[in-house]
Amino acid sequence: MSHERDPAAGRNGSTVRRIGLPVIALLFAWLTPLAAEETGGKSEITDITLDNGLQVVVIPDRRAPVVTHMIWYRVGSADEEAGKTGIAHFLEHLMFKGTATYPGTEFSQKIAEVGGQENAFTSYDYTAYFQRVPPDALESMMTFEADRMRNLILTDEVVAPERDVVLEERRSRVENDPGSLLREEAWATLFQNHPYRNPVIGWKHEIEKLNRKDAIAFYKRFYAPNNAILVVAGDVDTDEVHALAEKTYGKIPAVPDFPLRERPAEPFQNTKRVVELNDPRVSRPSFQKRWIVPSYRTGEALEAEAVDLLAEILGGSVRSRIYKQVVVEQGLASQAGAYYQGTAFDATTFTIWGAPRGSATLEAVEAAITAEIDKISSDGVDDKELEKAKNRLIKRMIFARDDQASMARIYGASLASGETIAQVNSWQDKVREVTADQVRQVAQKFLQDSRSVTSYLLPPADRRL
Amino acid sequence: MSHERDPAAGRNGSTVRRIGLPVIALLFAWLTPLAAEETGGKSEITDITLDNGLQVVVIPDRRAPVVTHMIWYRVGSADEEAGKTGIAHFLEHLMFKGTATYPGTEFSQKIAEVGGQENAFTSYDYTAYFQRVPPDALESMMTFEADRMRNLILTDEVVAPERDVVLEERRSRVENDPGSLLREEAWATLFQNHPYRNPVIGWKHEIEKLNRKDAIAFYKRFYAPNNAILVVAGDVDTDEVHALAEKTYGKIPAVPDFPLRERPAEPFQNTKRVVELNDPRVSRPSFQKRWIVPSYRTGEALEAEAVDLLAEILGGSVRSRIYKQVVVEQGLASQAGAYYQGTAFDATTFTIWGAPRGSATLEAVEAAITAEIDKISSDGVDDKELEKAKNRLIKRMIFARDDQASMARIYGASLASGETIAQVNSWQDKVREVTADQVRQVAQKFLQDSRSVTSYLLPPADRRL
Repeated sequence: MSHERDPAAGRNGSTVRRIGLPVIALLFAWLTPLAAEETGGKSEITDITLDNGLQVVVIPDRRAPVVTHMIWYRVGSADEEAGKTGIAHFLEHLMFKGTATYPGTEFSQKIAEVGGQENAFTSYDYTAYFQRVPPDALESMMTFEADRMRNLILTDEVVAPERDVVLEERRSRVENDPGSLLREEAWATLFQNHPYRNPVIGWKHEIEKLNRKDAIAFYKRFYAPNNAILVVAGDVDTDEVHALAEKTYGKIPAVPDFPLRERPAEPFQNTKRVVELNDPRVSRPSFQKRWIVPSYRTGEALEAEAVDLLAEILGGSVRSRIYKQVVVEQGLASQAGAYYQGTAFDATTFTIWGAPRGSATLEAVEAAITAEIDKISSDGVDDKELEKAKNRLIKRMIFARDDQASMARIYGASLASGETIAQVNSWQDKVREVTADQVRQVAQKFLQDSRSVTSYLLPPADRRL
Repeated sequence: MSHERDPAAGRNGSTVRRIGLPVIALLFAWLTPLAAEETGGKSEITDITLDNGLQVVVIPDRRAPVVTHMIWYRVGSADEEAGKTGIAHFLEHLMFKGTATYPGTEFSQKIAEVGGQENAFTSYDYTAYFQRVPPDALESMMTFEADRMRNLILTDEVVAPERDVVLEERRSRVENDPGSLLREEAWATLFQNHPYRNPVIGWKHEIEKLNRKDAIAFYKRFYAPNNAILVVAGDVDTDEVHALAEKTYGKIPAVPDFPLRERPAEPFQNTKRVVELNDPRVSRPSFQKRWIVPSYRTGEALEAEAVDLLAEILGGSVRSRIYKQVVVEQGLASQAGAYYQGTAFDATTFTIWGAPRGSATLEAVEAAITAEIDKISSDGVDDKELEKAKNRLIKRMIFARDDQASMARIYGASLASGETIAQVNSWQDKVREVTADQVRQVAQKFLQDSRSVTSYLLPPADRRL
């Protein structure tokens, strides 16, 4: 059970997962195109909706006798009530505490028995549960998972110790990591009104107060078939999956009058902000700089695709401008890059980062990286460079989707973040449509210094402010 | 109708009031001691609570045939739901739209007829309505005000145009004033979780969406006798006021199960932050630096009083260290000072500010002012200086309370912010108890650079970040 973080956290290695999902790869490949014919005969990706509102996505993949079963809820930390941060992630933990029908750890035992794996994760926009099992265990997984969609039993005896588990998780991942502490405050500074400002795991003092009543209220409100997406990927027959879905999840009534998903939006931002953390645990200074940019769901036509390509051109790989210029050519940085969190229900983040190498100063690294943005804003990119970036971006997606679990995650995350199957499927074509001028335009429009938030992670004596 | 702001805004002269209340004086004299005997014979300040929960404070003041009638609701912008910022202030405007019993502007007409004045204001922690009238009009005022506590009638015809009025108010006070724009973002940066982060007037995009339904829901939820304080100051007989209160407000039933007032609290802050606004409308650079500090309600024993004295010693007047050193002695600043917003339901703000004079740089001004804090944190203050500061602080309160309306405001604001009458009355004694070491301690404990938020208001070419 874990909560998702932004790339900096992932890169620092602090995102721990129980099983070896290609999470980091996914973070950099959050959207993938999928032309049905590419997956082989009889293996079209389908998307149906049951009468109770459950969306069912089947991704046939016959290469190995294994199936990935995921249920995605359209609820994450950004849907939490003010003052109750952490409840989405806490509930994710509590979902492993058993139901009336299958008490205790019966579900997990069953998974172990068939040699399967399971995990769960919470992000700003979704909460997901999955199992990877042999195909003949699928019906059993669906039965268990459908059962815990509505029949979770929570007692104070299981809630209180699990809260301590979460607090310990926060301690080890956030409080013990100055980079994470800084990241939290940088996000709280970047988002002035939107709940993305709050950490997914929750603020410590609010986690401490979460209780059974909060968990049950959140569960009853958000865990419903008409707020969920079932994704089954693997060695399955689509019709059979549909029949099983009807037989298991299909029996759960929809929750009536489900409210529209709407969060407080950001005001127009007028200021440049800097956040600085000096900490004795930091030996090497580094910076990150963030902007709020449109997501795939919120962007106007081709805007998100253009931002994605901008991130790729600037800093997505060793072929990118930042790497070539600042790391290789000028030799200033030990690490540097750019990242766009495109899959998000609301307006999202664009991040650049860097740390100096040898005798280079952090100031020089930051200036050199920022100069690459300015160059694109003023001079744009050339068509050949853009073409190569498109190829890299698309290739990375193709690589990511070669993994069954990644595929399931890509579809689940995109749909749970408000995109449609059609949008996911047409992504590759849209990327191909982006022009060099569109890339320049989004750089100019969104990456303005006067609306950025820079954070400095520094040793105690090294003050920038 | 207006919303209250922090001192910087008030000092910039942008807080407009319909009648000439000594608001600025009050901002610097938000708490006053009151020994009953000082107000003259038979004129004890009393505090009773009606059966329906309405707290009734009577402040006899026989010097002139005039009475100040105020109703204070324990609800302000910090009690708003996320995404609905501005609703407390918007409702304040709508409270002048008439009731079933007294349609349209009948209430205001009545006030004008008797030669009275009226106003209303909204802050983070309270909303208040008042009239200043001849004593024989008091019963009529109470009748009208009690009526609009529960019987407000709102139609879309009055709501929509009034929303435009509020948007225009925001345009003229905030959007047209770079200092206000910066202040909004500095508060949104300073408070990472608490709703003090949101402007009292509301974020523009959220005001635009407020409607009749929102206003009515807010009104029904918060406007109740058991969530209000009646303050009557002036040429009145206490028993008569009590009888009139029973006769008018006393008839309104309490709202049952009124929820506890609890807002999301701040997490522990680990970072230093800087917010910068460059704007062509700015000709003279200036800075403000803020910290979160305890309020009179939240502070431990004598903490708030010590912070109050710290503000006075540092920058409350021309006798303060900052003024004497930075303005007079070093001649660096055209203005400089310190301010503590002590009356607040939750943890509140401490602010220092300055602007350079002549050829001095903003950097030099900031360094000189900050040095005064560091001196107190390390060397403390001497007893004589402290004694003088106590005298000044107390004298200023005595001066403020010489005005009937100020008195009413002091009691109303303090009680609506969660203090008790006993606390208000014992304030002077508590201030006298503060030791020099306690002043040093609060400076050291709360005014740490590593948890501060500095904001720079600069002309376009003058970058600090």
